[in-house]
Amino acid sequence: MRAAGWAFAVARCYDAFEFMRIGVDIGGTKVAAGLVDATGAITNKVRVPMISSGTSAAGFGAVVDAIEAVFAAAPEARAAVTGIGLCAPGPLDPKRGVVINPPNVPCWRGFPLAAEVERVFGVPARLDNDANAAGLAEVLWGSGQGNASVFYATLGTGVGAGIIFDRKIYHGRTGGAAEGGHVTIDYRGPRCGCGKFGCIEALASGPAIARLAQTRLARGKASRIVELAGTLDNVRTEHVGQAFREGDRIAREVLDEIALLLTVWLGTIVDLLEPDCIVVGGGVAEMMSPYFEQISCTLPKWSINQRAAEIPIVMARYGADAGIAGAASLCE
Amino acid sequence: MRAAGWAFAVARCYDAFEFMRIGVDIGGTKVAAGLVDATGAITNKVRVPMISSGTSAAGFGAVVDAIEAVFAAAPEARAAVTGIGLCAPGPLDPKRGVVINPPNVPCWRGFPLAAEVERVFGVPARLDNDANAAGLAEVLWGSGQGNASVFYATLGTGVGAGIIFDRKIYHGRTGGAAEGGHVTIDYRGPRCGCGKFGCIEALASGPAIARLAQTRLARGKASRIVELAGTLDNVRTEHVGQAFREGDRIAREVLDEIALLLTVWLGTIVDLLEPDCIVVGGGVAEMMSPYFEQISCTLPKWSINQRAAEIPIVMARYGADAGIAGAASLCE
Repeated sequence: MRAAGWAFAVARCYDAFEFMRIGVDIGGTKVAAGLVDATGAITNKVRVPMISSGTSAAGFGAVVDAIEAVFAAAPEARAAVTGIGLCAPGPLDPKRGVVINPPNVPCWRGFPLAAEVERVFGVPARLDNDANAAGLAEVLWGSGQGNASVFYATLGTGVGAGIIFDRKIYHGRTGGAAEGGHVTIDYRGPRCGCGKFGCIEALASGPAIARLAQTRLARGKASRIVELAGTLDNVRTEHVGQAFREGDRIAREVLDEIALLLTVWLGTIVDLLEPDCIVVGGGVAEMMSPYFEQISCTLPKWSINQRAAEIPIVMARYGADAGIAGAASLCE
Repeated sequence: MRAAGWAFAVARCYDAFEFMRIGVDIGGTKVAAGLVDATGAITNKVRVPMISSGTSAAGFGAVVDAIEAVFAAAPEARAAVTGIGLCAPGPLDPKRGVVINPPNVPCWRGFPLAAEVERVFGVPARLDNDANAAGLAEVLWGSGQGNASVFYATLGTGVGAGIIFDRKIYHGRTGGAAEGGHVTIDYRGPRCGCGKFGCIEALASGPAIARLAQTRLARGKASRIVELAGTLDNVRTEHVGQAFREGDRIAREVLDEIALLLTVWLGTIVDLLEPDCIVVGGGVAEMMSPYFEQISCTLPKWSINQRAAEIPIVMARYGADAGIAGAASLCE
């Protein structure tokens, strides 16, 4: 029994190193990285400031620093890591591993990020959009496991999305597919940051929820939201969420409205893609999770698909670590 | 030279028979069928009335009659045909070849159509949704040739769609994907026949165009549309199209509005799918074809994709024969 147990432990250890990858999540202000094993578990997380102004070399230096910091925290990983995955927001070319025109990292226009990481660390590197990558991690290791086609969305300050078909990221013609946050459900509605009108991001993102609450509260009704925020101008999404949990009526009305908008949006997604599963992450998704069952039940009203209610809508496994897990999931 | 020419002719003839299929397009009132060769050319077209009430056997009899009529017109095809493709509207299970719940053929609920055709004719049979099938035919033989991923839409009395990825029909979880006509772009807008609000089918199908013209004309302005239609109540899509071609101002205003709605809709399609090519067919598409260039140029305003204008928007190769070609394209 002892010998068998030991062999099992060795095998597990071997497997863990066999599939060990580093995931690197590059944002406008920080680079987060960590070691990710074959089960998607993340260890040795680090975080360094991103240098997004100045030269591309300075920005790249921050990425190198983050990866080196993971190796420093887990020296045994240096020989074991078989791949480095990277994810970033904004337009990029996943096939060539090139950052095209990142809105928050202007110094990286056309920067061959994956090739540079491969050159420095001597292991294969892959790059993709952060929401695409997070979606793949959910399918491989998270709440979308066991499904071939998954629509993933992260609802927060913005609304990002990833489409996974046959357990692979669907990129479209030039890598621009899966911009699920910019599905227009109300073309006569408010303008989105992207320039379009009535995108779900303009209607149901964190800032949109705060704006909707402010509009309702401007009518002067008493609400816990204003108590929490101090002033009307100071109302943020979190105040609406907290007031909702405390039973505030206006907060409930606002989130009822957001639930309807999300249902309309998911109805369109289901009618176009009919995924096996819908996985949602991000702060707004957590806030809206008490509505998931209701959204599911109401979906057939906003879909031509009579089986729309059968499609599971589930919270993502990964929260703040979605980028690290997603980046690591890119390595085959 | 003569011998070589003869050999070439034999080879061509052999190829043509090698890939010869029958395509069967089943509607609520008629069954159309024809012989389709390896280039997608259709010959020996026939049309028989569909028997959509009564027993499933009566409806199936109409399908058998249509196929037999093709064989009667082209007796050499009986030994040469390698497959029979079938397409029909409404919910069906393409994997099992079963009609689930066709709105226009109630007697066929749960009818194993493909298996029955295989049993009677002794060749493999395939079944799919008519718009899916028509989209595949456009990719294999029509205006979408050379593209891996294509969004196909047929704009007419209704708006049907097909999504082709990697030169295959994308079905989704249960065959319910690609309901592109029921993408909601105006959730506060008019109700669609499907029960949802503001679907593109409710806004830009043939009947919607006629309704929009009637609304504009109700203000009492003189228009060629009313001259053509006789009375306001009698206005149909064709009258709007004819008046537009004759330079009528109200007709142009109506089609300007429809062009905007189609642009918003295609913006969402591009942001989700970023296809290599958009192929459109049907009477409304023909009527709107003078607007294709404008829609293409305006697409970046209604898409987050900076390259949206590069995606070709082209008229389908197949018109009224889209169903026959589509059905035949299902046979591998």
